[in-house]
Amino acid sequence: MNKRIGIIGAGTAGLHLGLFLRQHDVDVTIFTDRPPEAYAGLRLLNTVAHHSVTIEREIALGVDHWPSKKYGYFGHYYYIGGPNPLKFYGDLRSPSRGVDYRLLQPRLMEEFLNRGGKIEYKELTAEDVPTVAARFDLLVVCTGKGPLGQMFQHQPDHSPFEQPQRALCVGLFKGISEAPIRAVTMTFSPGHGEMIEIPTVSFGGMVTALVIENIPGGDMEILAKTKYDENPRAFLDLLLNKLRKHHPTVAERIDEKEFDLANGPLDILQGGVTPTVRTSHIILDGGKVALALGDVQAVVDPVLGQGANMASYAAWIVGEEIIRHEVFDERFCEHVNLRRQDRVLGATRWTNYMLTNLRLLPVELQQFIFALSQHRDLADEFTDNFNYPERQWDCFASPERMRAWCAKYQRTESPALALAENAELSMQ
Amino acid sequence: MNKRIGIIGAGTAGLHLGLFLRQHDVDVTIFTDRPPEAYAGLRLLNTVAHHSVTIEREIALGVDHWPSKKYGYFGHYYYIGGPNPLKFYGDLRSPSRGVDYRLLQPRLMEEFLNRGGKIEYKELTAEDVPTVAARFDLLVVCTGKGPLGQMFQHQPDHSPFEQPQRALCVGLFKGISEAPIRAVTMTFSPGHGEMIEIPTVSFGGMVTALVIENIPGGDMEILAKTKYDENPRAFLDLLLNKLRKHHPTVAERIDEKEFDLANGPLDILQGGVTPTVRTSHIILDGGKVALALGDVQAVVDPVLGQGANMASYAAWIVGEEIIRHEVFDERFCEHVNLRRQDRVLGATRWTNYMLTNLRLLPVELQQFIFALSQHRDLADEFTDNFNYPERQWDCFASPERMRAWCAKYQRTESPALALAENAELSMQ
Repeated sequence: MNKRIGIIGAGTAGLHLGLFLRQHDVDVTIFTDRPPEAYAGLRLLNTVAHHSVTIEREIALGVDHWPSKKYGYFGHYYYIGGPNPLKFYGDLRSPSRGVDYRLLQPRLMEEFLNRGGKIEYKELTAEDVPTVAARFDLLVVCTGKGPLGQMFQHQPDHSPFEQPQRALCVGLFKGISEAPIRAVTMTFSPGHGEMIEIPTVSFGGMVTALVIENIPGGDMEILAKTKYDENPRAFLDLLLNKLRKHHPTVAERIDEKEFDLANGPLDILQGGVTPTVRTSHIILDGGKVALALGDVQAVVDPVLGQGANMASYAAWIVGEEIIRHEVFDERFCEHVNLRRQDRVLGATRWTNYMLTNLRLLPVELQQFIFALSQHRDLADEFTDNFNYPERQWDCFASPERMRAWCAKYQRTESPALALAENAELSMQ
Repeated sequence: MNKRIGIIGAGTAGLHLGLFLRQHDVDVTIFTDRPPEAYAGLRLLNTVAHHSVTIEREIALGVDHWPSKKYGYFGHYYYIGGPNPLKFYGDLRSPSRGVDYRLLQPRLMEEFLNRGGKIEYKELTAEDVPTVAARFDLLVVCTGKGPLGQMFQHQPDHSPFEQPQRALCVGLFKGISEAPIRAVTMTFSPGHGEMIEIPTVSFGGMVTALVIENIPGGDMEILAKTKYDENPRAFLDLLLNKLRKHHPTVAERIDEKEFDLANGPLDILQGGVTPTVRTSHIILDGGKVALALGDVQAVVDPVLGQGANMASYAAWIVGEEIIRHEVFDERFCEHVNLRRQDRVLGATRWTNYMLTNLRLLPVELQQFIFALSQHRDLADEFTDNFNYPERQWDCFASPERMRAWCAKYQRTESPALALAENAELSMQ
């Protein structure tokens, strides 16, 4: 059987799946509204970290154009603000890497085309789906934009929020010097939100992505609403002022004269994401399957950098199952879901847990953070688990699990550190 | 953490789990109402085949007391009755084995006790559960008998039947000579039902189990209702008469003078099974988990010999997850279910499919059976897949899948055999 696969959407999910299928000589067509040459002129698309599990897939696909030994980062600095701040560090076992998607995605599209993949440039609507589906054995829908995503039903069990949980201001900046180790900094200002600083490759080389995650009603929320374009200097002054107050370990590395958007006014994006999980597949009229992948299946807030990684992971599984099966029906979808579900739901549950609980700071999370700050091994494991969100969820699924995880490390170290077990941080 | 596990029920699920946990030095107590010495005097408990995947687990547990090279069987003879009968054979890659559970279960209980397992002999009711649960970190419920199974909710999605689909008459017999290869014979009389002949170890050595699966309303149903005890000779004559008519490839190997129950009047069991899938776990008052395993989670008709194998498979997974986790909560159950679900549901769906469709004989099943009879490789794969019911379900989940599976073999053989693709058997 000569399988014909249609993919709607040219993000990480669609491109990784398309490249995988071309490696296995499957006839595959991607539908997208943007040609590769349009990307350079776009506003910043997002800020994304590819963790090493994703980079391994890019190596296997032959599209690892920014080797992580050179362009990657090696761990996480953590800063927990409050009257008595905590600072600590955890290592990644293998580096992660951030690349501006305005560079990455068109490069992957070109590779896909060079390897015999087909791209059709058109804006599809839900009405186009039957005609498109008729051309393929399986349709994979990876773009939630507009009415296509709406075809897949929202799953209330896994979608606890009706609206964005953070007011986002993300941008690419220059004028921030690297920390001693090239690493992500995750900094947390109780009551106000989180910021993730990601060393990122953009048009001119290494720049700094700041993902500023502001709790609605907090002192930082204004950053999601103030327009850079209206008065760049005023915006930068406001930002500097807020960073000094809430995220000082990043602020202290800023050269104020240099500090600005890295490539120009398109390097900033403001808004919010409503975390949502949708049904995994639908049966179209005529019995053909449309499978949800990437952001269509599950969209997360960027606070933990999970979106692209879960999309790539699931794309790989979908690719393997397409190769393995001859018939694309509900049983096919069941195989896909059994394999992708734990990581995809792990990422969404853990991200949603953090969105809620970094705001509420229950005692067990305070104790966990304190234990992280005291046990380097635990901080290393927590950091490397950004690759494996299902393992992270094994920790965060209940207060008992959080205590059990900490206890594993406390048992092996000095009695003094067992303090963490009973600590309450004065962070509010 | 010193884990304490309670298991209710000493069937395959409970004993394999108990032995696994003792191998890992976990504190484990089994509750059952019968001591090992009571088994020899019981009525036949069931007729069970352990496939090689289960035997491998028994070897790993050090309880493979009837090595399958000596006591096992090596394949399946198939006989499809009708005006123009089909006879064919398929190999198992490694032998399966049947042992009378009145021998097997007490032997496993003794091994469990010798290895430091604890057994408490009492008949538990649902009211005892809170007191028992309080003594353990996790309670595993493996006996569906009486009110304990009822604690776990019936799952309508996976439980299509309200009553038994076959009127069963199963017994251990002497006076049936072995076929040329020691094998199971699966014989099928359209409109009347199936019979599975299983070479089985009982008290005096090798005997023959006959699992007679009679379609309600068919000519064979009377075998489930006629009592051996009331008139043994009359029962045997009735049985011989029915076997000659409906299952001739077994009847022709019977020495009528020798033919009788193998050990005596307790070697026969009549009744029926309503195939049922229940919820995987419940949360008891106080938050402790009671996990369903074996027959409590899913009970199948014995027609395909899947019950003990799915119970043992799931028990092994539960054992591994108990070792891996420190906290026994819903996340723990989720890990168990993600790993056991496809095989357990595969076995129930495939068995339920066969119960319905061997009665209705849709065209795609007729074509599939004809292809089986024409392609030895396909018959071998189908036969060995009794080890892997989820792979069998990959074939039977839809008519398209059945056609695709057959086509795989038809492509590689002579064009004459491609006839199978368009065949309709005259079986009704």
